[in-house]
Amino acid sequence: MSTRLRVVSFGLGPIGLAAARLALQKSSIELVGAIDVDPAKIGKDLGDLLELSRKTGVVVRGDADAALRELQPDAMLHCTSSFLPVVKDQLLLAARHGVDVVSSTEELLVPALQHRALAQELDAAARRGGATILGTGVNPGFAMDFVAIVASAVTFEVTGVQCTRVVDAGTRRLPLQKKVGAGLSPAEFEQQMATGRFGHIGMRESVALVAQALGFGDLKIEQTVEPVLATEARQTPFLTVQKGKVAGIRNHGYGRRAGQTVVHLDLSMYVGAPDPRDEVVLASTPPVHVLWKGGIAGDQATAAILVNNLHGVAAAAPGLATVLDVAPPRLCR
Amino acid sequence: MSTRLRVVSFGLGPIGLAAARLALQKSSIELVGAIDVDPAKIGKDLGDLLELSRKTGVVVRGDADAALRELQPDAMLHCTSSFLPVVKDQLLLAARHGVDVVSSTEELLVPALQHRALAQELDAAARRGGATILGTGVNPGFAMDFVAIVASAVTFEVTGVQCTRVVDAGTRRLPLQKKVGAGLSPAEFEQQMATGRFGHIGMRESVALVAQALGFGDLKIEQTVEPVLATEARQTPFLTVQKGKVAGIRNHGYGRRAGQTVVHLDLSMYVGAPDPRDEVVLASTPPVHVLWKGGIAGDQATAAILVNNLHGVAAAAPGLATVLDVAPPRLCR
Repeated sequence: MSTRLRVVSFGLGPIGLAAARLALQKSSIELVGAIDVDPAKIGKDLGDLLELSRKTGVVVRGDADAALRELQPDAMLHCTSSFLPVVKDQLLLAARHGVDVVSSTEELLVPALQHRALAQELDAAARRGGATILGTGVNPGFAMDFVAIVASAVTFEVTGVQCTRVVDAGTRRLPLQKKVGAGLSPAEFEQQMATGRFGHIGMRESVALVAQALGFGDLKIEQTVEPVLATEARQTPFLTVQKGKVAGIRNHGYGRRAGQTVVHLDLSMYVGAPDPRDEVVLASTPPVHVLWKGGIAGDQATAAILVNNLHGVAAAAPGLATVLDVAPPRLCR
Repeated sequence: MSTRLRVVSFGLGPIGLAAARLALQKSSIELVGAIDVDPAKIGKDLGDLLELSRKTGVVVRGDADAALRELQPDAMLHCTSSFLPVVKDQLLLAARHGVDVVSSTEELLVPALQHRALAQELDAAARRGGATILGTGVNPGFAMDFVAIVASAVTFEVTGVQCTRVVDAGTRRLPLQKKVGAGLSPAEFEQQMATGRFGHIGMRESVALVAQALGFGDLKIEQTVEPVLATEARQTPFLTVQKGKVAGIRNHGYGRRAGQTVVHLDLSMYVGAPDPRDEVVLASTPPVHVLWKGGIAGDQATAAILVNNLHGVAAAAPGLATVLDVAPPRLCR
C-alpha cells in the first residue's frame, strides 16, 4: 500500500467512535474527516470525543454534503443506524460523491431482502457515482453467516446450516445491554419489542445471506425473539438485573423449505450467558464443525471488521456489494 | 447463474479425478473435456476412469493445446504437479487460450516466493490472455493460512499466528500415506526427503501468505520435517506400519523476524495421529481461537475447494491471483 486511504467517519456513536479510534491507529489509513448529526458533537475535535490526550485535527461536521465535497475522501466508515430507510440519503450522498462505504447498517447485509426498490436505487446510484457500498459487521456479517459460508468451501454438498452464538451481555457495553433488555421487567420487554427497534437487528438478513450463498433458493425466513429471565440477581459494570427480570434475549432465525428447517441460527445474548462461543455446524459432505472458542468479541470485533474492510471495498467494483462480492476480509495495518 | 461454466479437467490423478467427479455433479458446471499425459488414460471416457456406471461423453485427450483450442472452455481444473516449474507450460497454455485456472499446484499459492521471474511471466501472460490463474487447496490454501487470515478480520492487531493441523494419515488415501512415508524405515525416509518431492509441499508458501496478508513484512521463512516413528504396529486399509518404522511426518513452518517466531505452523500427518483437528490461535486484540473439530477432511475437501473456486475465478480480474484476490470461496451448486 503506497498511498494511504483517505477515510471519513460518519456516525460517532459507540461503534462509530471505536472504528474511528482504530482507523487513527492504522498506517495505511488517513482519517480526514468526521460527521455526526448530534449538535453536542459538531465542532469538537475527534480527539476530545475519543478522550485522547491530543487533538487529531479532525473536527466533527454536521453538513455531510459539504464535508464530502470539500474533503473528497476515498472511503467512509458509516455507523449511523440499523435500518436502511433511515440511512438511504446518507448512502446516496456518498454514492454521488463517489465515496466507497463500509457500513454497520444491519439491513444493508442483504439490502434487497426487506427493501428491494431501495436496494435497486442504491445500486444504480453507486454504479453511477463509481462507489462501492458494503454492509458488514460481526453479527450480521461474520459470526452467524460469513463463517458458515466460507466453511462450506471445503464441502461437496450442504443440506443444513446451524450457527450458535452465545454472548454474555454482562461483558459488553451498556448500549448492548440495553438493546437486549437487561434489567427490564417482562412487560417492559414486550413493549420494547413492539417498537421493532429493539433486540438484535439483522437475523433475517443473516439467514438470507446463508441461503443465497449456499444456493438453497428462496427459503421462508422467520424469527422468534423471547426474553431470558434472570434466575438470580446479576450485576454488570453498568446495571443490575434482579431475579425474575430480563437478563437478555434468545433470538432464533429459521430458513425453511417445505416445512423443513434448512438454516437455523440460534443467538443468545444475555447477562450471565454461560459458555460464550460461536459455533458453526454444517450438515454436509464431509461434515463441518467449527468452534470459535470464547466467541467473537462483540464491540471490538465490530469496529475491527469495519475498518479491516476499507481497503477491500476501495478495490472492489462499483455498486451495492455484499460480503461475498469483495475480497476476503483481513487485518489491515 | 443462468449459464453453466464450461470446464476442462487437466490432470487425472487421485485429486484431479475427485475434482472431475464433483464437477460432473454440479448443475452450474458443464465438464466439457479432460486432459492427461498418461497414455493409459488417453482415449478413455471419464466415466470409465471414475468407475461410473455410465459414459460421460468426455474422452481424455493428450494434446492440451488442441483440446483447449477446440473446446474453448471457460475454466480449467488443474491438478498435475506440486511444483511451479513443472506446470509452467501448462499454465502458459491456458493463459494463451484465455482459460481461467484453479490449480492444486502447491507452489502456486504464493508463486513469487520461490519463482519470482516465473511468476512475473505467468502474470503477464494471464493478463495478456484475459485469464485468471489461482493456486489453492486445503493445505496450502485454507486450513493453515486462509482461515487464520480471515479470522484476523475481527481484530485490531495481530502479533503472532499459530496454526496446528493434525491429520490421521491412516484415514487418508494411499498416495497421502506414501507421501508422508508411512511404512518406511527411518533410513528410507531420509533418502526420500533428500529428493525434495516428498512430504507436505507448500509449508513455506503458507507461512508467506500469512505474513503477506497480515502485513508482517519480510519474515525469515524456515521449516523442519522429521519422521514420526510408530510406537506400536499400525494397520491402514492400504499398508502396515511396523513398530519403529515411520508412521508419517511432523512438519513445522516458521516465519521469524529478529529471531522471534511470528508465524508458527505445526503440521502432523501420520498413521494413528490422535485428536485430528485444525486449530488457529492468533496473538491478537481481541484474542482469537478457532477450532475445526475433527480437522478439515483432506482429500474430499481438496477436491471440493478446487471446484468451489471455479465461479469466483471466472469472475475475477485477469492475472496471477491469490486466494486473497478472488471472492471468498463457498459451495457451488
